Amino acid sequence: MELSLYTKVGELSEAQAKGKLVVVIDVLRASSTIVTAVENGVERIIPVATVEDAKRLQPTLGRKDVLIGGEREGRKIEGFDLGNSPLEYTPEAVTGKTLILSTSNGTVAIAGCAGAKETVIASFLNLSAVAAYLVSARPKGVAVLCAGNLGQLAIEDFVCGGLLVDRMDRTTRARLVTNDGAAAARALAAAVPDIGEVVRSSSHGRKLAELGFSADLDFCAALDRYATVPVAVDGRIAGREAVRR
Amino acid sequence: MELSLYTKVGELSEAQAKGKLVVVIDVLRASSTIVTAVENGVERIIPVATVEDAKRLQPTLGRKDVLIGGEREGRKIEGFDLGNSPLEYTPEAVTGKTLILSTSNGTVAIAGCAGAKETVIASFLNLSAVAAYLVSARPKGVAVLCAGNLGQLAIEDFVCGGLLVDRMDRTTRARLVTNDGAAAARALAAAVPDIGEVVRSSSHGRKLAELGFSADLDFCAALDRYATVPVAVDGRIAGREAVRR
Repeated sequence: MELSLYTKVGELSEAQAKGKLVVVIDVLRASSTIVTAVENGVERIIPVATVEDAKRLQPTLGRKDVLIGGEREGRKIEGFDLGNSPLEYTPEAVTGKTLILSTSNGTVAIAGCAGAKETVIASFLNLSAVAAYLVSARPKGVAVLCAGNLGQLAIEDFVCGGLLVDRMDRTTRARLVTNDGAAAARALAAAVPDIGEVVRSSSHGRKLAELGFSADLDFCAALDRYATVPVAVDGRIAGREAVRR
Repeated sequence: MELSLYTKVGELSEAQAKGKLVVVIDVLRASSTIVTAVENGVERIIPVATVEDAKRLQPTLGRKDVLIGGEREGRKIEGFDLGNSPLEYTPEAVTGKTLILSTSNGTVAIAGCAGAKETVIASFLNLSAVAAYLVSARPKGVAVLCAGNLGQLAIEDFVCGGLLVDRMDRTTRARLVTNDGAAAARALAAAVPDIGEVVRSSSHGRKLAELGFSADLDFCAALDRYATVPVAVDGRIAGREAVRR
């Protein structure tokens, strides 16, 4: 199985993503928020790249049972129902709802994989479930797209990607053929003693702590809290049909 | 001291490089070749981005004592005097010569930093010398640009960059403020038991071995073979004026 890891949004082109199985990782916080919302009973999620896309889409779906969520520079967008803290996406808030989500990096990454065969959403929260899903799906090739932060590598995404590669290699019978990004991330993840410390000391983590989101950091660093695998197909993440292991 | 590491050519824009002290790392092989050529007595090196730039420049300098070197897809360019193997750049070949050099990634990276205050060329071969140079220069900020390979992170450059960050942090009295790329590369480098194995197992290393350049891999993986610090200012690397420690 060919397994390539990319360090930030834009490194995997739409053309390269076409027809592939893509895994999008944005630990802080889009991936963690999506996994949590699906776990907590959201009906479906429509990830969009821009605030304008979200606002344009909302009236076409009606106000009833439709939530609009997301952030720019870490903060809730004006006029939106929810921000991008997974802690907001409780069962009370999301059960049975359609969620339109727009974040700085994560939903841009997902929207940029529109031509992918399917796009799996991964985070520390559902890492082993995603690894098991990929191992049983046995695709020919997997592209792991770490969303990054401000156009650069984000260490929390890179370590999460590395841990995913490691988990897959330990559980699959297939031989993994990795690119240098996957090999580097895996070796780094193996050397990291504490995921929480990686997340808290990351550039994005420190920024979010300044904004008052320290509780999000601990939440997003929890390994294998959930067994849910959100999958985006044709720009939609189906809540009820998500794989649960 | 602010220290940011970038994982591939193009991640550091010309605008971001402007006025900065930039370190370019292309272990396989442009950085290693430049360090070796300077060590072996080259008069000056003019790194250029394209083959056309090299061919256009050569007649303006005259044939006498001018060499034109470089590669595309690992192989010597047709009509050029030398390829991109550091083993070709012997004292006999380069002493007193002007070298025009064009490679796939490394010289593109250097040429892309035209507006930088100065551009230091680093490799495993001169790692400690570069670290010492940077520590004594005490710049406000350093940008470490790993050239990468085929538009992706190259593990040999990333580990070399991480080792440079580690060496600097151990020897400077200044507090290093690193981006996630620098922190990730440093943690990875600390976990790597064998540089030679990193270089040989890298994507680019395997490609070069296929092309018959296995001896280059061992040569480029040698730590601190030289104490020379090539510095590009205004698009020229002065051989005789290079810092020697």
